[in-house]
Amino acid sequence: MTHRSEDTLVALLSGPDGPGIVAATSGWIAERDGLILHADQHSDLEAGIFFQRLEWVSSAPEPAREADDFAAFARTLGMAARVTSAAVRPRVAVLVSRIDHCFQDLLYRWRTGELHADLTGVISNHPDLREDTERHRLPFHHVPVTANTRDDAEARTLALLDEWKTDLAVMARYMQILSPAFLERFARPVINIHHSFLPAFSGARPYHQAHTRGVKLIGATAHYATAILDDGPIIAQDVAPVTHRDSVPDLIRKGRDLERTVFARAVRLHCEHRVLAYHNKTVVFE
Amino acid sequence: MTHRSEDTLVALLSGPDGPGIVAATSGWIAERDGLILHADQHSDLEAGIFFQRLEWVSSAPEPAREADDFAAFARTLGMAARVTSAAVRPRVAVLVSRIDHCFQDLLYRWRTGELHADLTGVISNHPDLREDTERHRLPFHHVPVTANTRDDAEARTLALLDEWKTDLAVMARYMQILSPAFLERFARPVINIHHSFLPAFSGARPYHQAHTRGVKLIGATAHYATAILDDGPIIAQDVAPVTHRDSVPDLIRKGRDLERTVFARAVRLHCEHRVLAYHNKTVVFE
Amino acid sequence: MTHRSEDTLVALLSGPDGPGIVAATSGWIAERDGLILHADQHSDLEAGIFFQRLEWVSSAPEPAREADDFAAFARTLGMAARVTSAAVRPRVAVLVSRIDHCFQDLLYRWRTGELHADLTGVISNHPDLREDTERHRLPFHHVPVTANTRDDAEARTLALLDEWKTDLAVMARYMQILSPAFLERFARPVINIHHSFLPAFSGARPYHQAHTRGVKLIGATAHYATAILDDGPIIAQDVAPVTHRDSVPDLIRKGRDLERTVFARAVRLHCEHRVLAYHNKTVVFE
Amino acid sequence: MTHRSEDTLVALLSGPDGPGIVAATSGWIAERDGLILHADQHSDLEAGIFFQRLEWVSSAPEPAREADDFAAFARTLGMAARVTSAAVRPRVAVLVSRIDHCFQDLLYRWRTGELHADLTGVISNHPDLREDTERHRLPFHHVPVTANTRDDAEARTLALLDEWKTDLAVMARYMQILSPAFLERFARPVINIHHSFLPAFSGARPYHQAHTRGVKLIGATAHYATAILDDGPIIAQDVAPVTHRDSVPDLIRKGRDLERTVFARAVRLHCEHRVLAYHNKTVVFE
Repeated sequence: MTHRSEDTLVALLSGPDGPGIVAATSGWIAERDGLILHADQHSDLEAGIFFQRLEWVSSAPEPAREADDFAAFARTLGMAARVTSAAVRPRVAVLVSRIDHCFQDLLYRWRTGELHADLTGVISNHPDLREDTERHRLPFHHVPVTANTRDDAEARTLALLDEWKTDLAVMARYMQILSPAFLERFARPVINIHHSFLPAFSGARPYHQAHTRGVKLIGATAHYATAILDDGPIIAQDVAPVTHRDSVPDLIRKGRDLERTVFARAVRLHCEHRVLAYHNKTVVFE
Repeated sequence: MTHRSEDTLVALLSGPDGPGIVAATSGWIAERDGLILHADQHSDLEAGIFFQRLEWVSSAPEPAREADDFAAFARTLGMAARVTSAAVRPRVAVLVSRIDHCFQDLLYRWRTGELHADLTGVISNHPDLREDTERHRLPFHHVPVTANTRDDAEARTLALLDEWKTDLAVMARYMQILSPAFLERFARPVINIHHSFLPAFSGARPYHQAHTRGVKLIGATAHYATAILDDGPIIAQDVAPVTHRDSVPDLIRKGRDLERTVFARAVRLHCEHRVLAYHNKTVVFE
Repeated sequence: MTHRSEDTLVALLSGPDGPGIVAATSGWIAERDGLILHADQHSDLEAGIFFQRLEWVSSAPEPAREADDFAAFARTLGMAARVTSAAVRPRVAVLVSRIDHCFQDLLYRWRTGELHADLTGVISNHPDLREDTERHRLPFHHVPVTANTRDDAEARTLALLDEWKTDLAVMARYMQILSPAFLERFARPVINIHHSFLPAFSGARPYHQAHTRGVKLIGATAHYATAILDDGPIIAQDVAPVTHRDSVPDLIRKGRDLERTVFARAVRLHCEHRVLAYHNKTVVFE
Repeated sequence: MTHRSEDTLVALLSGPDGPGIVAATSGWIAERDGLILHADQHSDLEAGIFFQRLEWVSSAPEPAREADDFAAFARTLGMAARVTSAAVRPRVAVLVSRIDHCFQDLLYRWRTGELHADLTGVISNHPDLREDTERHRLPFHHVPVTANTRDDAEARTLALLDEWKTDLAVMARYMQILSPAFLERFARPVINIHHSFLPAFSGARPYHQAHTRGVKLIGATAHYATAILDDGPIIAQDVAPVTHRDSVPDLIRKGRDLERTVFARAVRLHCEHRVLAYHNKTVVFE
């Protein structure tokens, strides 16, 4: 569990592997009388990359400044670093269509305090979820998308995400494909939930594909959206058993429970600064 | 659990769906004072096909004859039927290469009586498992396969399978592809174990593929071999969680436990007459 | 999947095992030109009890009358039978305290049509969930319980359940123990969700017990409430992995996802007439 | 994966929590030009205890000496430490009765090199597994146990374990209870596999208990044996689904697959120096 006071800092580092990095980063913290709560690291020996997640209680009078200082220090070690106070709640915007189980589940986790994030607003290509959104005192924007209006819709979506100072966008069963141009301009992470065990059954109607193939397990995959559809770095996956008795509607029903837990898990891991993406994979520090 | 005395019969039926089939088959048995132990049925409503597995204690003086009579009766209902005494043990031949965890596991289940089948012999394209095979008093044949000798090797394999009166051939990590011609001439079921969650990562080196794609679960799939590689009807599948810490050797190690249990499960289900294949899928009556 | 038109009937039977029962029941249906959709049976060989679930499309002009006729016929076979139209939705009342994840989840499944039941009202010993209940146009009754008022509270609860013509009461994390007298007078099934893998950690604070014992899996169990606490027939169970890193709050968070799916599964199975309880166990026809 | 050359060292530390420990231990290694491969730590905040597992490549001319030096240094931090070369293979003795699936599985993992340990010998209260043991060129000792001879049998067992310089004893379904006196005199870890999800169904015949209670999952638990039966610190657990169709023999069959994987997992984790026991729990660094 994360200690979420302002003086608790979380750093995610990555860079060229080599001796002494663990000692250097933990030594830097010890010199400043910091108390390390969690330290987790990983070396991809093939790629020669070192990854670390550090969480410590700072005793500096201005923890925000210590965060900047640590990031600067990490750069001297050749490391890219994101450092933040554990108290900072990422600002998360939700994209959704009509199917609402992931959406409702995320809202529930948010309002009960389980999700360490601030939801900023909801954008949908359908009007259906306005009431459920506004009841939670969140802004709802209906941004319809047609073949002809996609560019405009994306521009409007982007403007809203910017206006909301969005740190993370999540596609809670948003049945539209975000264009490469959109992703490039947004330039912040987007988490998508796909209703299959990727890379099996990418693209449209995965439960129908699964039924046709006669698999004995169905799956769900949460990943970062990239320019290639259903191909981004995978954050979380799970499966559930099915049998010959399960029709496509049964698969859809069973899949809903999978999708919402896998989606919520990925969003939680990201918001707790536990995920580093590289080479189309992820390191997930749990 | 199956009652394995000679007077216990097992029937697998399939054919066009319609009213009265359950009554007809169970009525036929009741008229002959049979006691139904298990009756399981399934209707594929889209395809209009009815499937049934019946297991009953016959009170006929010659149960083998009642089996034939039942099959004839089923044909009058438009059903294809396989009927056998539960005491009959299918004759199973093993194809294997060098990697032996599925092989050893199958032998263990066979000699402890868990597997309701008679192993008839082992064919391998490597000589390594001769001793382990012969210690179990089973014949071992080393049939090397090279690009030039495949046709001869398959002919020799086929001759051995025929000589052993094989009902089922199982590929216990047999690292050769059986040709469509072989499968057509053998004309009996062949179960293969593939070390991925099919249809993901079909073909060669699935653990390497899984590692490259960065999945968070690895899988194993047992299926009937068909002319198209890794595409046959799936009998059983399972998965295990992996993380960024798992190298390819770790995936291979974790996968071994999956493969042997999924493989053993599929062979057991088949040998207990619980599997019906149709339209590249299976009905599995458990 | 259940066909939920009025002419689809579902029967649950149980009684002394013997030859000819499957033929008798399916024959009765066939004689009346019924089409069996599903037929599932089980024999407890030790106890000598036969169980069956039948689902068929009746061609009778008055299916409700055929249901009664079938029940009468079953009694001539020595069987107890519950027969109902698949279109009939059981009337389900909800008991809940403050912790609301099972409650919210059940409401969601109900309003999206996944749950084949009519919710009739909510009774709580706390006032917190009034707004969420009434927004769904369901009656909410705050029935506080103290050591001194338990008898009165149970009497009032019973009166409400009777008024609502309740078929099933569900305890969606209702943190009160229903007295044996209450259960006897209510005389209809009550489903409870316990937040452990029963029989481990029965009673109070199971996640604290689990943390103290250092288990590597936590569980949830849905069962029928009986006069003995946490001891009734188990309908559904599931577990999730935990590690030394998980504090009690982590167990509680991970457990929530388990509890709501296990609870929803048990309620669904019951409402689809798939559960028969006997000898403190259940037969679950899935 | 562990690098198993002689110059790779593994340390397990535990002691009072406080600031600077991570920096101190990693700094000590960095000063000696060691390369940390893995560093994992955990703080039990309630108990105030710090745990760490460090794995590093030493550049010292005598790594064994560096191991001693590190242990001495750890003591100056108030930490208890076990430090060893990753190349050292723990010496493991096997206790077994007649049921041999865990035994055969362990032997298989050992001879294929999956288990990083040296098996030293087998002690059994039955003669059955002599041949299978000796075929692997391991000593087999039949030490019968009766109510009257238990003390003698334990003395003989202890003498053999000492003679073999045993680091770890494993009970691979050894159907005898080791006395508190034996455990005290042996004074080294003993891993047992119990065929239930502890703490449910401790003691005799857990599958019969599970069948009577009507659970929907069966389990297996590997734990360190202590003076109280089935109560020691849990290292690994897993479960498998069962239904009303499963008789006790079915539970036993399904349980075998669980038991051997859970047992093998616990033995592997221990032999790779990944387990620290405290307060009747374990920290497992995976």
